[in-house]
Amino acid sequence: MADPYSYIASNRNRYEKELTEFLRIPSVSADSKQKPAIEKACQFVADQLKSAGLATEIIPTEGNPLVYAEWLQAPGKPTLLVYGHYDVQPPEPLELWESGPFEPTVRDGNIYARGATDDKGQMYTHVKAIEAWMKTVGKLPINVKVIIEGEEEVGSVAIDHMLPSLKEKLACDYILISDSSMFAPDVPAVTYGLKGIYYFELFIDGPKRDLHSGTFGGSVKNPINALCEMLGKLVDENGRIQIPGFYDDVVEIDAHEKKSIASLEFSDDEYKKEMGVHELAGEKGYSTLERRWVRPTCDINGIFGGYQGEGAKTVLPAKAGAKFSFRLVPNQDPAKIEAGVIEFVRRHTPPGVTVRLVNHHGAAAVVVPLGSPPIEAASRALKSAFGREPVYIREGGSIPIVNSFKRVLNADSILIGFGLNDDNTHSPNEKFSLKDFHRGILTSAHLLEELAKI
Amino acid sequence: MADPYSYIASNRNRYEKELTEFLRIPSVSADSKQKPAIEKACQFVADQLKSAGLATEIIPTEGNPLVYAEWLQAPGKPTLLVYGHYDVQPPEPLELWESGPFEPTVRDGNIYARGATDDKGQMYTHVKAIEAWMKTVGKLPINVKVIIEGEEEVGSVAIDHMLPSLKEKLACDYILISDSSMFAPDVPAVTYGLKGIYYFELFIDGPKRDLHSGTFGGSVKNPINALCEMLGKLVDENGRIQIPGFYDDVVEIDAHEKKSIASLEFSDDEYKKEMGVHELAGEKGYSTLERRWVRPTCDINGIFGGYQGEGAKTVLPAKAGAKFSFRLVPNQDPAKIEAGVIEFVRRHTPPGVTVRLVNHHGAAAVVVPLGSPPIEAASRALKSAFGREPVYIREGGSIPIVNSFKRVLNADSILIGFGLNDDNTHSPNEKFSLKDFHRGILTSAHLLEELAKI
Repeated sequence: MADPYSYIASNRNRYEKELTEFLRIPSVSADSKQKPAIEKACQFVADQLKSAGLATEIIPTEGNPLVYAEWLQAPGKPTLLVYGHYDVQPPEPLELWESGPFEPTVRDGNIYARGATDDKGQMYTHVKAIEAWMKTVGKLPINVKVIIEGEEEVGSVAIDHMLPSLKEKLACDYILISDSSMFAPDVPAVTYGLKGIYYFELFIDGPKRDLHSGTFGGSVKNPINALCEMLGKLVDENGRIQIPGFYDDVVEIDAHEKKSIASLEFSDDEYKKEMGVHELAGEKGYSTLERRWVRPTCDINGIFGGYQGEGAKTVLPAKAGAKFSFRLVPNQDPAKIEAGVIEFVRRHTPPGVTVRLVNHHGAAAVVVPLGSPPIEAASRALKSAFGREPVYIREGGSIPIVNSFKRVLNADSILIGFGLNDDNTHSPNEKFSLKDFHRGILTSAHLLEELAKI
Repeated sequence: MADPYSYIASNRNRYEKELTEFLRIPSVSADSKQKPAIEKACQFVADQLKSAGLATEIIPTEGNPLVYAEWLQAPGKPTLLVYGHYDVQPPEPLELWESGPFEPTVRDGNIYARGATDDKGQMYTHVKAIEAWMKTVGKLPINVKVIIEGEEEVGSVAIDHMLPSLKEKLACDYILISDSSMFAPDVPAVTYGLKGIYYFELFIDGPKRDLHSGTFGGSVKNPINALCEMLGKLVDENGRIQIPGFYDDVVEIDAHEKKSIASLEFSDDEYKKEMGVHELAGEKGYSTLERRWVRPTCDINGIFGGYQGEGAKTVLPAKAGAKFSFRLVPNQDPAKIEAGVIEFVRRHTPPGVTVRLVNHHGAAAVVVPLGSPPIEAASRALKSAFGREPVYIREGGSIPIVNSFKRVLNADSILIGFGLNDDNTHSPNEKFSLKDFHRGILTSAHLLEELAKI
């Protein structure tokens, strides 16, 4: 068999079995107890790339190891760097999963597991496309490098620190990343913009021990009251973020892009139904897709303090805390945002409590130029696999490494996602459509061929 | 031996052993899994009263059972109703206890365990004082009824509902309750005022599932953001509670009481040290003791939502919630406060979320008349046991049943506490001074004699 496309069609069962095996590994990077699973997931990816015929190595880092693989025997042809991650988000709250987060289960044509779409399933499409070319034609149409990391869900710290030293090894013309979504079922998309992110934790200390709220209430500042007073001021009633200087560098959406977004088939009513809410929310003056794609946002991601058990406990707790993050748009500088948040906390800390601000990770937003040859190649590949032209979209999520790649490797990323918006990434019952898994493999195989034509 | 006071002096070891046994029982009324411990604690109290020589019965209720005991063979003498509770607060957070909450341990003359002072230890002083009279003199100086309940920490619901039907059984001249604190170590006090309470839980529902905060942030209302925005408005920067109509019925402290409170030996600096804070807080314009005793307060007692684990998780959660309560002062009507809170929630619920408000329990504040014969008798009893005159104080905590007793039985309560402010009631490492435990028993024995003289 000398045709990668027939090979892909006839290996569907094996691909699904392998993906299931991969998804069984609880490689949660936020949980230090899962180090052995991290090692195992890393090894799984390395073994797959090696058996596909690529020169493969595991690169140790200050954190979780990287998998690197290459095949560079297409002189004169462009070099593509495929990036992905083998780590996953924490699975909590566990009680809301219909089947175990690390017991992959197929229902209605979807495979359910933590990491199914983000990013094990999507990343694996490229591994299998490479294998299909190597096992049939015996070579790739272009030069390919692969770098798969294990800390994307906690800020890509290790690879980011190491990137300058990997500059030559990872040198490339384009980068290929599948860690996002299609626009809608059966509507493939090229993602040309990603938001940046800055994630913080705020810890508030009040009295040195938990107190009886009757005996001591009104005499010392309650850390939960303080926390709510502070975080309640983050966003005003028009959905505007109140961090000093937050909007200074935000570029307003231009008329052309506004029109392009408005032309996409999107219904607020359908979206409300999908979200299960009576009313949408967010910054006044922008459409839903604009708020999701081109406007910065602020979400409190977790909050804790005092008694959370059943019934009533009249405690004035010693401490409280919260995790919150901002999604940034192009031209916003994470360093300025951090300074603004520090100033916000300083301004709004009420007397009587001590605060500690921890910044988890920051990354700027990115927009890639539409109409460039690699983006056109991606469009043709998607059309071959899906049978229709893709649409061009932005994404509210962040892939911080895209920025670092641009800075260090001076290469743009081709972002084509095979997920769907209701895939429950970062929440219980994460899933990935097996149909799109296979179309993803097909797209990737076509893309290697299309890029050879540039 | 015909003298209850010598009997008390010579039975100290046995009292401590019995108290230890009582404190081992994890009778947490907020935790439905502890029902067997509730039954056991109830039976323990009943057995003790019976063996002291009182006619004793366990009265089933819609909730946790009551212990009732009586000795009514002092014709022409007043009848005293002793009230206490055998249930305790939840012990969480467990990791902060130096010894297990239900493994009573003596350190530095204090016994450490959940319920040591609130209220098992304090309530037990009266059981042992009654025993001392019965086992020596063979009778009590006055008529005594005892009612011990098992739901004080969750709002005294069952006894409150049942009280009208117990009106004749519990008919009395005075009620004796020890569920509060002395003013300071070696400074006994008669408590003439208690705050009321109203405890609420607020649940916020947003999207029907946890969402990726990047992909969906800015398009649907985040329930934690909504919660913080709402609760951040509960109290303004001057410490004034923003519930509509909240201060309408509050009576300002009169000059006489203001002077009396100011005359007590109290240092803000010492208090700061004891609390472990750099600065005190609360309503502007009032001293620390005034804020604790005569001004209404608002504390958020617990808050929860989103990711609380290690590291960063970029989730926009489906739900969030909080527990919060108000301490009320005389003349504030809990029903009006409830209406105000409902209105507050209605006014401040942002679009895009659904809220559910649960009211746990409410009780008005109470003040008992100073200078009355039973209060004078209590003063003399305290002086006999402690060797000095007591001071007169109020307390920020609530004993909701005091109000119900006044309403249904038309009797005032004598509130004499043997605890200390640093006893960690409702927090880890709750303790009770064994010295005060024994002085409490002595006080109670003297009080029976003093009340006979009225």
